[in-house]
Amino acid sequence: MQNTVHHIQPNCANFRSVARALTIVENDLTGAGELLKSLTFNKDTPVIGITGPPGAGKSTLVNSLISTLLAGNNKIAVLAIDPTSPFNFGSLLGDRIRMASHFNSLNVFIRSLATRGSLGGLSAKTIEMADVLRASGFDYILIETVGVGQSEIEIAGLADITLLVLVPESGDEIQNIKSGLMEIADAFIINKADRADADLFTNNLKKIIQQKKENGPPVFKTIASKSEGVNEVINFIKSASHLKNNRKELLMSEKAYKLIQQRLMVNVDKKKLQQKIAEALAKPEFNLYTFLDSNWQS
Amino acid sequence: MQNTVHHIQPNCANFRSVARALTIVENDLTGAGELLKSLTFNKDTPVIGITGPPGAGKSTLVNSLISTLLAGNNKIAVLAIDPTSPFNFGSLLGDRIRMASHFNSLNVFIRSLATRGSLGGLSAKTIEMADVLRASGFDYILIETVGVGQSEIEIAGLADITLLVLVPESGDEIQNIKSGLMEIADAFIINKADRADADLFTNNLKKIIQQKKENGPPVFKTIASKSEGVNEVINFIKSASHLKNNRKELLMSEKAYKLIQQRLMVNVDKKKLQQKIAEALAKPEFNLYTFLDSNWQS
Repeated sequence: MQNTVHHIQPNCANFRSVARALTIVENDLTGAGELLKSLTFNKDTPVIGITGPPGAGKSTLVNSLISTLLAGNNKIAVLAIDPTSPFNFGSLLGDRIRMASHFNSLNVFIRSLATRGSLGGLSAKTIEMADVLRASGFDYILIETVGVGQSEIEIAGLADITLLVLVPESGDEIQNIKSGLMEIADAFIINKADRADADLFTNNLKKIIQQKKENGPPVFKTIASKSEGVNEVINFIKSASHLKNNRKELLMSEKAYKLIQQRLMVNVDKKKLQQKIAEALAKPEFNLYTFLDSNWQS
Repeated sequence: MQNTVHHIQPNCANFRSVARALTIVENDLTGAGELLKSLTFNKDTPVIGITGPPGAGKSTLVNSLISTLLAGNNKIAVLAIDPTSPFNFGSLLGDRIRMASHFNSLNVFIRSLATRGSLGGLSAKTIEMADVLRASGFDYILIETVGVGQSEIEIAGLADITLLVLVPESGDEIQNIKSGLMEIADAFIINKADRADADLFTNNLKKIIQQKKENGPPVFKTIASKSEGVNEVINFIKSASHLKNNRKELLMSEKAYKLIQQRLMVNVDKKKLQQKIAEALAKPEFNLYTFLDSNWQS
């Protein structure tokens, strides 16, 4: 058997094969394209997106979800995404999860991913890496990202089920919540629910959801640090496969669109662009739009 | 004279011409390309980006900056950008500024822009609209956006000078600030500086900046609601043209890259993509990467 890259079939029974496949895809090493095309998706693994503002306790919740799922004898993959934003501390995400000592478990695979792409937000690489995990036979895939700005919209385009984690103090903001949030979140999780005003906040949120949408997303209360309320979230995840099937086409189209975008831009030589711009800028009549119509790539 | 679109020369002496040019560009109406190519940039108008987390008081600061600049007999344009994120309330930005009654001034032009682009973050349209304003002869252009996630990185790619607005309560977050923030912010503004711990927070921030970088960005304290400290910010803006010149090439290259991306994607038929994906998904062996290599566009 030849040792060509596309013979790597990532399999959760062998974490090294998964890690290697991810590295090949992340860095677009030789054979990455072949590897992706050879992926098979025999198992319909649910991809759970967990997002929310900094400080909402996402990592603690992920830890707690993992513990509960492990007790059910599941194999779990975690992709902790760092949108490399100054306001959040994404690169810590994977570490925070890893620090919880019992996750030296052979059943939990954790990978951190920093995405500083010129494409903004979650990169096309994220899609490809999530697909590697989906093809690896895990029972659950958790994708965690600090969700402020654009990233929580993009995680919703990547995950089958998106959980939006908030804290009771988010109260001021919730008054201004736009319908966009309802489109993104399949469930709201009010974490740190032992804090003051948690009930008030939860009820207000429920009221807002009802006003906007019949049968809107459910609201769960958790105290992730004590694993309280986490079983209810797991039950929701298990019962939510209909959500996934309803929008499979849309999700896949969004993913395809992103990947096409990445491929088209691969041929744009950024260095050359910068050099030609520098030359053109020296002229006082410089106009960017005329420049782009010119033959700058030649 | 023919009434063709590209004869519209947006001019701040005539707000209707500016508004019309913006509308043509925003909606890509006939002649938008010609209009952009005919823009002339005689005046080196500074573009000031104002960003920061929700609740930092950005709109109040913008109001205060406008008042002060108006007193100096300047013509000002404001572009309030809504990244259409559930966590922020961008569409209110323009309104909040407009509500301050004295801005029925003939010297302040305000435009709101919602950006829900599949490109993520600030769209290519934002670049084009900012360029329309830059060519209109204003003295100052202010671009305000809620800066969480990716958007504050993108505003830094659009503005000559980026002000990052924080509040003393941001203290917990500041401990974790990564160098990325220093790359983005040309100045930090601690707003609501009459709140508890404002001095402590300011000093901590200064210390962090010093550790990371000699001659790092300055830190200003403001109470925007009382216009306190705002003159210092204006003085900084006036003195900061060196910042702009230092990275003109980089800024322009980033803008060019975004615009190229937008143009390449224009030819991708999203509806057809979705339809073909729906057909392909019906087959159990569906693999997105094989699909993209196929001839789906034909």
